[in-house]
Amino acid sequence: MSNDKSTVRHHQHAPRPSANLPDASELQQASAMFRALGDPARLRLLARLAGGEVCVTELADLEEEKLTTVSARLQTLHDARLVKRRREAKHVYYALTDRHVLRLVQSAIEHAAEKR
Amino acid sequence: MSNDKSTVRHHQHAPRPSANLPDASELQQASAMFRALGDPARLRLLARLAGGEVCVTELADLEEEKLTTVSARLQTLHDARLVKRRREAKHVYYALTDRHVLRLVQSAIEHAAEKR
Repeated sequence: MSNDKSTVRHHQHAPRPSANLPDASELQQASAMFRALGDPARLRLLARLAGGEVCVTELADLEEEKLTTVSARLQTLHDARLVKRRREAKHVYYALTDRHVLRLVQSAIEHAAEKR
Repeated sequence: MSNDKSTVRHHQHAPRPSANLPDASELQQASAMFRALGDPARLRLLARLAGGEVCVTELADLEEEKLTTVSARLQTLHDARLVKRRREAKHVYYALTDRHVLRLVQSAIEHAAEKR
């Protein structure tokens, strides 16, 4: 709740209840996450993961991209805590971190589809 | 559904049902929207609008910023169709475009708050 100046009265408007604003650290984290989402190729990887976890080699096949290219995109998404990964023998599986990420991806796609 | 290569069979994995992927235009729009969200100051404006529409002069007061600074941020959000505006006499009011945007903002904040 730092920088919450909503108690400042605007001279031409009725008083407004103090907004429940995120603090500076939450805003920094959320905006960093949005920057990671701001790329069509990374976003498509997330859309593929919306149905459940997928092995990185399968993602590369599906995307018809090099494994190194897809791995780099997944690393960016992992740094932003949008995906989690687990190893099983020689396979590395990726999945969306949680339901918040699923909702973010779904809301964005719906919004984009609706507004065309 | 362009570029959907999910019918390509990965040799080491069970067949996977064709993903319901957004098309290239939807991905472009959604990622542009995420880039507009990828800034803490713009995100805080959206958080302020989560409670309902606010006049631009009141937003500038609340943010303790120049009107021109806040107007520029709102223009970026408007270009990305994250906010809508209406004029009433000398006032310009901004609001979130729809429930998808509200959900995007709320999900991001919850995700950021949860992962600290």
